[in-house]
Amino acid sequence: MTDLFCDTAMLGAGWATGVRIAIDATGSITAINANADPRGAERVAGAVIPGMPNLHSHAFQRAMAGLAERAGPGGDSFWTWREVMYGFVRRLGPEQVEAIAAQLYVEMAKAGYTAVAEFHYLHHQPDGSAYADPAELSLRVIEAARRAGIGITHLPVLYRHGGFGAKPAAEGQRRFLNDADRFLGIVERLRLVYADIHDVRIGMAPHSLRATSPELLADAIAGLERMDRSAPIHIHIAEQAKEVDECVAWSGARPVAWLLDHMPVGARWCLVHATHMVDAEVVNLARTGAVAGLCPTTEANLGDGLFALPAYLAAHGSLGIGSDSHISVSPIEELRWLEYGQRLARRERNVATTVASPHVGAELYRLALAGGAQAVARPVGSLAPGQRADLVVLDPDHPSLAGRSGDTLLDAFVFAGNTSPVRHVMAGGRWIVRDGRHAHEDAVADAYRRTV
Amino acid sequence: MTDLFCDTAMLGAGWATGVRIAIDATGSITAINANADPRGAERVAGAVIPGMPNLHSHAFQRAMAGLAERAGPGGDSFWTWREVMYGFVRRLGPEQVEAIAAQLYVEMAKAGYTAVAEFHYLHHQPDGSAYADPAELSLRVIEAARRAGIGITHLPVLYRHGGFGAKPAAEGQRRFLNDADRFLGIVERLRLVYADIHDVRIGMAPHSLRATSPELLADAIAGLERMDRSAPIHIHIAEQAKEVDECVAWSGARPVAWLLDHMPVGARWCLVHATHMVDAEVVNLARTGAVAGLCPTTEANLGDGLFALPAYLAAHGSLGIGSDSHISVSPIEELRWLEYGQRLARRERNVATTVASPHVGAELYRLALAGGAQAVARPVGSLAPGQRADLVVLDPDHPSLAGRSGDTLLDAFVFAGNTSPVRHVMAGGRWIVRDGRHAHEDAVADAYRRTV
Repeated sequence: MTDLFCDTAMLGAGWATGVRIAIDATGSITAINANADPRGAERVAGAVIPGMPNLHSHAFQRAMAGLAERAGPGGDSFWTWREVMYGFVRRLGPEQVEAIAAQLYVEMAKAGYTAVAEFHYLHHQPDGSAYADPAELSLRVIEAARRAGIGITHLPVLYRHGGFGAKPAAEGQRRFLNDADRFLGIVERLRLVYADIHDVRIGMAPHSLRATSPELLADAIAGLERMDRSAPIHIHIAEQAKEVDECVAWSGARPVAWLLDHMPVGARWCLVHATHMVDAEVVNLARTGAVAGLCPTTEANLGDGLFALPAYLAAHGSLGIGSDSHISVSPIEELRWLEYGQRLARRERNVATTVASPHVGAELYRLALAGGAQAVARPVGSLAPGQRADLVVLDPDHPSLAGRSGDTLLDAFVFAGNTSPVRHVMAGGRWIVRDGRHAHEDAVADAYRRTV
Repeated sequence: MTDLFCDTAMLGAGWATGVRIAIDATGSITAINANADPRGAERVAGAVIPGMPNLHSHAFQRAMAGLAERAGPGGDSFWTWREVMYGFVRRLGPEQVEAIAAQLYVEMAKAGYTAVAEFHYLHHQPDGSAYADPAELSLRVIEAARRAGIGITHLPVLYRHGGFGAKPAAEGQRRFLNDADRFLGIVERLRLVYADIHDVRIGMAPHSLRATSPELLADAIAGLERMDRSAPIHIHIAEQAKEVDECVAWSGARPVAWLLDHMPVGARWCLVHATHMVDAEVVNLARTGAVAGLCPTTEANLGDGLFALPAYLAAHGSLGIGSDSHISVSPIEELRWLEYGQRLARRERNVATTVASPHVGAELYRLALAGGAQAVARPVGSLAPGQRADLVVLDPDHPSLAGRSGDTLLDAFVFAGNTSPVRHVMAGGRWIVRDGRHAHEDAVADAYRRTV
């Protein structure tokens, strides 16, 4: 019902000029043609690229950004950060959760993220009892995404234990806990509510090996498969060296190796972080076709370590990016520092090159589109018939893009400058950002400030 | 002649409320009082912090940002990047140099940099012969800074050789080359032209040990001292491991060790990068009182390596930040990734804490203000009588700063979000950025785009 016409657009591995994109009333692309007739189409000035899926988000953590950048007594680590986070979690009600998520998703839209996979582990009241609707907080978060206009793949989190070997959960974890039945009830309810909504997909996320058990994992996966055999499954894995040591003490195997040996890991899986792998794990993970969910800004903020990027790319592994704790909300900062971390460690330049392209920025952007689309398990990540109309228009007047085109333009988008050239953003066929502004940004920001 | 009044301002290591800042007609602060009377003053909404000095810039490289992010045949490194840069340099005339520098300095102002130290090595015509005015390109760059309204410490670069042991310079370096007399002539001319201008300071920059020789260094320093015994001296040092190896082969000593042993390094010196130091060099450098000029985004982009930050802070070393190649122009990205690089390498959080403050963002900002001010050798970097009125007003409505105050506000400024909360910027007593816009930004960007 809408036709767009732009001078240049990224189609697959290349670029086309004079591109006309036909979009139907449901928000999907029905046709896309190069060297097309512009008459009757809405003209868009600037290069058009697919919007980026954000494959890992804990929405409520947006409101913590900047609060934990101080040293505590006795050193500081991921684990002391987690205590700050638990203290924060205790105080959030449904309205706060929704206000924070709406602010976050508006920021995502403005940064060029058009879809998110929300790894949602805040389910219950502060004392651990269920809300009247057990899916209350999930519904709040999904509605926040719908208000912001971005697509959401909602992943209720299965969390039951406080450590490997089914250790009891701690006080600060009460709001997260479910057994398999209660958990599957939430998944089922959400699937029912959003059955006919294009831009919402329901999957699941076992939190981690330490927060589940082999039996619980197997039960939950079997329960999900009875509902939807292609629903995405995400899991945190091998983020911290301590977690690797504990997994080895528990099972004799490292986390990624254990998971690949005991669970049906395949293309519908996203292994979030996968920071600490030995060479065999890198190759074996790549072979499964699962996505590595990389979160460079959060992994740096938390001192996790660097992903084995060169070996994983050499093994043709799939990857995408997530803003995770939302210390930053920018696909550019994620991609740039994914590459820069490698450059610093290896003391060379342009590490993330593949045979596909010598352009590192363009290649990283394409890799993250493909892996991100796979992880959100929705038809996004490229401009083609049958895909959702999720796209970003880059500002042709932005000085950092002056004189750049094609893959060199994408290199400049990723690596040059620190002000965003994202000008307009469309998701599901609707303009959600025009001239850098989101239609609801003032109202959403007001509600957010009141919450904080 | 102007009085400002703000609700809160960063004064030294703390914060004050109800602050009135009196500024004279020359652009210097004459008085500053807390809990003051606002009547008759210009009211400023938002927290006021000192503007950041940018201690290392090669202005013309701004126009290359994003062009070298592709792999060449046979691998890629700092040294292949340098070949791209030399090819770019061949084509620049005075007008292009000025247009690029003006764009860069406007971007600096908008990002919250209120002063720059320009390490200027592009002196001559493409064939190496002097312009009619031998300081032509320096004058162009300084005028660009004055148009943007930021203070500039201009450092003509002494460059004569192509490698350690006085190797002949290469073809691509002809525009940089000077002997001591020609070099000192440029310094003298610039000192004369800008003798009475508050916001311009002239120093000098021997490019590096590999591009100079001990005799040339001694002659240039002696020549400078005859003109100005407190003028700043900046030098690139120990950026790349290869350079360290070549220095050892040439002299038997590592670059920083050689410099400290043979030159009068003290508080007026800035050692740019100083990436590769052994423990004794770290401690000895800190003892001299010189500034370490750190450029985290460029050092990451070029795969240089990580500075020895924890040991240097433990030795009470002085440091500041520079945007160097301008792949990014943001004090936030420099400070954030200075800390994050350490977190990734050490797998812990909040590395850059000192006894002064547990707030890592606030502490890094203060350290970089002090070291940056020392490196630009002008009265900037704090809000106090006698200092230039160089300041930044943070947007009180920015969601990332909501609910934050004092040092927690600075932590959020440095670590949270990816959109700049810099709202207004004053340099030398003049508002150069209001509501995120620079008065000349459109005209400057037009000229820049025509150039590129």
